[in-house]
Amino acid sequence: MSGRLRERLICLAPILPAHMTKRIVIIGSGAAGMTAASEAKRFDPSAEVTVITDDEHIAYSPCAIPWVIEGKMDRDRMVMHDPSFYAKERNITVITRKKVTAADHVRKTVTAGGMEYHYDALVVAAGGYVFVPPVPGTDLKNLFRVRTVNDAAAIYDALGKTKKAVVIGAGIIGLETAYALRKHGKDVTVVEMLGQVIPRIADEDIAGHVQRYLEGLGVKFVLRTPLGSVDGEDKVTSITAGGKRYVCDMVILATGVRANLEIPKMLGLDIGELGAVVVSPAMRPYRKGALADDIYLAGDIVQCSSAVNGRPTMSQLGSTAVRQGTIAGRNAAGAQQTIGPTVSPWISVIGDMEVGGAGISEGLAEWYGIKTVSGSSEGHTCARYYPGGNELRVKMLANASTQAMIGVQMIGSGINGRINWMASVISSGTTVGGFLHDGENAYCPPTSMVRDPVFNAADNLYEKLKKQAF
Amino acid sequence: MSGRLRERLICLAPILPAHMTKRIVIIGSGAAGMTAASEAKRFDPSAEVTVITDDEHIAYSPCAIPWVIEGKMDRDRMVMHDPSFYAKERNITVITRKKVTAADHVRKTVTAGGMEYHYDALVVAAGGYVFVPPVPGTDLKNLFRVRTVNDAAAIYDALGKTKKAVVIGAGIIGLETAYALRKHGKDVTVVEMLGQVIPRIADEDIAGHVQRYLEGLGVKFVLRTPLGSVDGEDKVTSITAGGKRYVCDMVILATGVRANLEIPKMLGLDIGELGAVVVSPAMRPYRKGALADDIYLAGDIVQCSSAVNGRPTMSQLGSTAVRQGTIAGRNAAGAQQTIGPTVSPWISVIGDMEVGGAGISEGLAEWYGIKTVSGSSEGHTCARYYPGGNELRVKMLANASTQAMIGVQMIGSGINGRINWMASVISSGTTVGGFLHDGENAYCPPTSMVRDPVFNAADNLYEKLKKQAF
Repeated sequence: MSGRLRERLICLAPILPAHMTKRIVIIGSGAAGMTAASEAKRFDPSAEVTVITDDEHIAYSPCAIPWVIEGKMDRDRMVMHDPSFYAKERNITVITRKKVTAADHVRKTVTAGGMEYHYDALVVAAGGYVFVPPVPGTDLKNLFRVRTVNDAAAIYDALGKTKKAVVIGAGIIGLETAYALRKHGKDVTVVEMLGQVIPRIADEDIAGHVQRYLEGLGVKFVLRTPLGSVDGEDKVTSITAGGKRYVCDMVILATGVRANLEIPKMLGLDIGELGAVVVSPAMRPYRKGALADDIYLAGDIVQCSSAVNGRPTMSQLGSTAVRQGTIAGRNAAGAQQTIGPTVSPWISVIGDMEVGGAGISEGLAEWYGIKTVSGSSEGHTCARYYPGGNELRVKMLANASTQAMIGVQMIGSGINGRINWMASVISSGTTVGGFLHDGENAYCPPTSMVRDPVFNAADNLYEKLKKQAF
Repeated sequence: MSGRLRERLICLAPILPAHMTKRIVIIGSGAAGMTAASEAKRFDPSAEVTVITDDEHIAYSPCAIPWVIEGKMDRDRMVMHDPSFYAKERNITVITRKKVTAADHVRKTVTAGGMEYHYDALVVAAGGYVFVPPVPGTDLKNLFRVRTVNDAAAIYDALGKTKKAVVIGAGIIGLETAYALRKHGKDVTVVEMLGQVIPRIADEDIAGHVQRYLEGLGVKFVLRTPLGSVDGEDKVTSITAGGKRYVCDMVILATGVRANLEIPKMLGLDIGELGAVVVSPAMRPYRKGALADDIYLAGDIVQCSSAVNGRPTMSQLGSTAVRQGTIAGRNAAGAQQTIGPTVSPWISVIGDMEVGGAGISEGLAEWYGIKTVSGSSEGHTCARYYPGGNELRVKMLANASTQAMIGVQMIGSGINGRINWMASVISSGTTVGGFLHDGENAYCPPTSMVRDPVFNAADNLYEKLKKQAF
């Protein structure tokens, strides 16, 4: 920083009524950042709230992109509000297309677009970026990420010239995008490094149902195969994976999100073992093991704790971003609120199939060193005798040692509320027996079986636990 | 009993391998009884399980009747299994159309149709009967109850000759039936003694939405008006209520269910203050304050404890019957299981409107002497930007003294899982702050908002609680 600029800022400082108007600066305009901004302003209407983002659009949900690609919703609907809405309706300043180039926690400033912004409280919600595999060709045309409004628009606009698409990564976003492309009649191949679709969060048997459903619609899968290269001169013409070439004119990178650590590093914040920022339950970061003052974090940038065992976990979900942004924003404005650890309830909609879960999968349990026992059931989404409805599969995992419910996965329809229900049950450390003892369900023929299938899965699990030596 | 018969039975007794084959007799063939029978057999496959019922049909759900009347499902589908299914598939004997005329807990016998049945364990799941107001004319033709398969058939078959129908009672079954009749183009008036629809379990504001919805479809309501008489010579021609005559050719009694106490009285069981049988958490009744041996109860005949405050409550729901029948049946077969108190989650589907709840209403809280604070929110059943979806209203009640969540009510669609979720949260004694601290929701644009509306209702409630002196 030039001496001239510093001087100017020092001159400016006394003009700001530092202790009357709290200056809250928020970096990032996604679900975490915009929620933090609104909640900060709601908690302290007198605060001066400024959001800085390098994005062109704000307040949109990347989760919507597959439906924009499918054509089920207009891309304009992705963006819920623009900066003028925040200025007029909430008295929040939003500065777009400005990258934060410096952050100084001693002087409590953030620099973006050559301007320096003082903060009394800073919320870092700088999100994540799509991981790009370190292989040749990832800079070719018609290789797309699934992250921003512009990504969505670019993919949609390229559809007309696309016959064959390859999706790299069989996570939720990858599968939802594969479905959307297939709906347009494209030849779609999904390439996944690991041995199953929806790795890490879904078990192999549940994942198998999803894969077969998509295969039934004509989507092809290449599993256990890392991307070797993206090939072409100017535009993508093929990809190579496992030594085999797949001709295509579109590549979608759905390779997962990594935390954006640039700003945390500028601020000297501690980075956790999973490559994201460690925070307290009040969403405050640490610096060399000590709580850092006046800084709050939220969203994809944060390393979470698992409610199942207190151990580190990632929860890069829109709903988690909002949950964390709410607390980060309020606390930045003077509240003293905390949130608990996470069971990361998730849901994905692929055509008319819903799949989702909460807690940990068998794979994650193994990584944590937890021996699991599983139970399952097959039920229906309405009374058996009522016309219509869908099949519902429920899989439930318990810790073999404590008998606590630690994970659930479901396939069917209308599963969202059930997943939230199970998230709550898992989060509170309920045992399988405790769930069967206290659990109840509402019943009406068009909406439910008289006994919810989750109880049958719990019964099945309970029987197995009884036979276990522990 | 004649000396001859007793002698014969005494002679018979040694023939039965009393300690090898357990004889389990179940009175009642509804959800509670048939579940108890199946679970008893599942727990002890060697047990001899006999179900005795005075009904002609077994294993059906009275909750289905409104949809049979509407014509949405065939009456034959109401009955899931007949006695021959239980005989062949589950090795359970079902004796229909036999009324139990005696029950002797000393000799451990039940008499039905002139036959005496010995039991080692007895499950009384004799259900309830529709309360008939003590007014003239309730024996006239074309006055129907909404309880049995034959009731459903009789109403459906009478539709052709019906122009005007009066439904007595604005509870769930009354409203669902009113909707079904209106769908057939009938002129429908609902007469309710209390001042709102869905009294006791729904609050006035929530009930108002339901009433207005039905009024919008042409259903008329007469509230705060007890039935005076049912009028006619042979058939119903009108009813009189509040001094006013309502011409009609069909009357539906949806006046609620009273526990069937005949058999409990024969067995000398203690009756609770709400007019149903008091049971232990293992579904065992009491006799003069002491646990009664070898008898279990389940279903509409049982007085429950509220999970909100441990006080007596009724929970005459199909799902409660199955929950209790499961434990009663297993314990009759030798298990030692218990169930917790109830929050009675309920749901009703009226056209395209779903309404439901869990825990206690403001009215019940007042009866219990609990001061409540309420919060509410209006949300959506999918992301705001996603096409389609429905509005979702959530109302949440807390105990002003403890800040515990004690009740929730919702109107919208896809609410079943949410109600079960809230039932679990309420049942575990969670405070509003605790729910906001630990609660999470899954998110996908077609199935949910990024933050579930229940959290907004909890936020609203939390703000109000903060301002309360307690």
